[in-house]
Amino acid sequence: MSKHNKQMNLNVFIMNAGHHEASWRYPGTEPHNITDIAYFKRIARIAEDAKFDSLFLADGLAVSKNIKHGAFVGLEPFTLLSALASVTEHIGLIGTVSTTYNEPFHVARKFASLDHISKGRAGWNIVTSGSEFEASNFSQDAHLEHHKRYERAREFLEVATGLWDSWEDDAVIIDREAGVFAEPGKVRAIEHAGDTFKVRGPLNIPRSPQGYPVLVQAGSSEDGKEFAAQYAEAIFTAQQTLKEAQQFYADVKARAARHGRNPDHLKILPGICAVIGATESEAKEKEQALNELTVPEYGLNQLSNMLGVDLFKYPLDGPLPELPNVSQINGNKSRFQLVADLARRDQLTIRQLIHRLAGGRGHRVFAGTAVQVADQLEEWFKQGGSDGFNVMPPYLPAGLEEFASQVVPELQRRGLFRTEYQERTLRGHFGLGRPLNQFSTAARLLEYEAK
Amino acid sequence: MSKHNKQMNLNVFIMNAGHHEASWRYPGTEPHNITDIAYFKRIARIAEDAKFDSLFLADGLAVSKNIKHGAFVGLEPFTLLSALASVTEHIGLIGTVSTTYNEPFHVARKFASLDHISKGRAGWNIVTSGSEFEASNFSQDAHLEHHKRYERAREFLEVATGLWDSWEDDAVIIDREAGVFAEPGKVRAIEHAGDTFKVRGPLNIPRSPQGYPVLVQAGSSEDGKEFAAQYAEAIFTAQQTLKEAQQFYADVKARAARHGRNPDHLKILPGICAVIGATESEAKEKEQALNELTVPEYGLNQLSNMLGVDLFKYPLDGPLPELPNVSQINGNKSRFQLVADLARRDQLTIRQLIHRLAGGRGHRVFAGTAVQVADQLEEWFKQGGSDGFNVMPPYLPAGLEEFASQVVPELQRRGLFRTEYQERTLRGHFGLGRPLNQFSTAARLLEYEAK
Repeated sequence: MSKHNKQMNLNVFIMNAGHHEASWRYPGTEPHNITDIAYFKRIARIAEDAKFDSLFLADGLAVSKNIKHGAFVGLEPFTLLSALASVTEHIGLIGTVSTTYNEPFHVARKFASLDHISKGRAGWNIVTSGSEFEASNFSQDAHLEHHKRYERAREFLEVATGLWDSWEDDAVIIDREAGVFAEPGKVRAIEHAGDTFKVRGPLNIPRSPQGYPVLVQAGSSEDGKEFAAQYAEAIFTAQQTLKEAQQFYADVKARAARHGRNPDHLKILPGICAVIGATESEAKEKEQALNELTVPEYGLNQLSNMLGVDLFKYPLDGPLPELPNVSQINGNKSRFQLVADLARRDQLTIRQLIHRLAGGRGHRVFAGTAVQVADQLEEWFKQGGSDGFNVMPPYLPAGLEEFASQVVPELQRRGLFRTEYQERTLRGHFGLGRPLNQFSTAARLLEYEAK
Repeated sequence: MSKHNKQMNLNVFIMNAGHHEASWRYPGTEPHNITDIAYFKRIARIAEDAKFDSLFLADGLAVSKNIKHGAFVGLEPFTLLSALASVTEHIGLIGTVSTTYNEPFHVARKFASLDHISKGRAGWNIVTSGSEFEASNFSQDAHLEHHKRYERAREFLEVATGLWDSWEDDAVIIDREAGVFAEPGKVRAIEHAGDTFKVRGPLNIPRSPQGYPVLVQAGSSEDGKEFAAQYAEAIFTAQQTLKEAQQFYADVKARAARHGRNPDHLKILPGICAVIGATESEAKEKEQALNELTVPEYGLNQLSNMLGVDLFKYPLDGPLPELPNVSQINGNKSRFQLVADLARRDQLTIRQLIHRLAGGRGHRVFAGTAVQVADQLEEWFKQGGSDGFNVMPPYLPAGLEEFASQVVPELQRRGLFRTEYQERTLRGHFGLGRPLNQFSTAARLLEYEAK
């Protein structure tokens, strides 16, 4: 809305006690509340009061070996987001779901349901799963190869969008007199038969307020960027420097254009883990205090998984050993590349690298005053590095409260962020249109006229 | 709780505009609201204000051909129940999930999440799916054969209960000083490798308030009864007469005892669709008005699917044709038998049978005053026919309001139903214990002492 002043989109990425891997040891955080819905309700209210576009949950389908020193466990995204939908009114609700370990009928249905329940605020962060551990929870002997995961994801999306369109918007008539509930000609089987999926449809839920959830993507590999350029309406990405962010931004926008899409309809949101202090030195001290709370074994395990090398064999205060080639990585390829580049560029020891990754797992960490944070965000936004940001509070709930009460007002003063919600759907917040139904008469007419 | 007066358990089975198949045409119902969470919130509040034990949602994974005249479509159970968990405090939340078209890791995780979000109010109605249509939405060429579905269900339960126990209750320590989040020895891989599933575990969510959701089952076939006797803690069942209900009750309780279980820990809850009037004749007129709103094609299609015969070829006012043998039915075997017996016993024409099934699809329909309804419930409860009831309002929300404001107070006056909640979990309402963790030291000690 109100395009006279271009404003940024802000998503808050919620993760248990916070994004910093030591957040659960940091004073004031609430690791004992990560399965308590009241905790997440408080966080959602802070974000909604600050007029964030959306809140977002990552997801994984396995427990890593890190359980002793903190682990990514807790509530499942759909159950959590639905519970939050009941107690919020404007903020978008973005959940991560893997196309590798799910069936498109279930996923399409659950997102349609969440979109109805939230009255048009659902978003789907589409992932292909980066962890070998997940396969062994789903009767698979091995994790599907990277390229094949994206092939499956494309077919998954084809089925899901078909199912979302299997009911026309005006299919439900409810003519009590005549006894007609729905018009059968407007509810269609999709009869999908592809390499991986065979799905008849229709979906068992009418088309939802947004038509379908906002499609979000977070992979930044070659496959990931192509997938995003074709399907995604927003991208969460990890970029360390403005220059890299600009390159990524220009690359992905150009790809979207090559797919015949309006590049404005693909929002690029780099992650930012802002450690905020009253002064710059207070912020740096906070960052250091957090880093000092990290447990080396935890970071070593995370880093070993990310890089495909057992780092426990090497001295903590020495350099990284020789790394495998990215072609041998079957997890998150782009994150591997980012971390390898970072270590090389800044000549980091293993311990230094663990600290650099502790805040954002490869996302940018910036420690400074609220004004300095706002300066950074403004610079990236105005210099072609982003359309907004994926805000990753290092510790919760206080880190979000600080961002909401200090950085957001600063951005608002600069005219860079909304002061009131203008819309009620996530598509509305992101300035995205409601997708036409591919099967509807109206869509077919438009297609005909375009010829 | 308070076992001095044995009281019945009441569950409300919520279905869109109501259980009567013509409810969406009945004055006062809200078929336009079946995807609106506000509608379900109102219904949940009525049920909670009346102190119902639980509310329950059925589920299916395909749209039948009945879409023109009303169909079983709408919100997905987990998203709906989580949204309701946010706005209720006491009532149990029971969702249906098929073991035939799901993976145990996802299902165990979602129920654990719902149980955390609701603080111990989750229940799982375990079904094996009765409809051939579902297979074609999940890349399957045919619906799994009845007996194989139950084999899969048993292995599914084995995996799910293992996953729920993969975290001991005191596994999460959160020792900030020492940097210990969880005790690794109390979070276990389950390493399941069976005929159908291979699941390593552990689950990625700590053990939930109830240990695991109350396990509910609704199949009444031979396989279904055996499965229920082994695993279920409550059974929803369709019984037309007290005599049949008594036989079923005695049969299932004896089976539970043969499995070494306390029969009191398996609650038997027959369905009751009560059409309530100020006088008996008003109730009968209501029932007739509802039946007259049925659309014959809808009922014919339902009945054809249920009986495995195309009834469109036979005169509506004539008798049923010869039916297949129950062994040829691969859907809901016990419902087939019930309907076949009902038509034979009461010498019904096809049209009469459609009307008899319109209110409860084979569940008992009773039209009368609130006192007469209470008399019926008391008789079944006191004569060994049930431990309580699965209340199926013919139309919503008014049918539930009538039951809550007229039948419930009558049962309370007779000392047959609670006037206040005594407990905060569904296990508490049902008088069920919290399951021990099969892997915990405490459980192993108990096992040892029992030898």
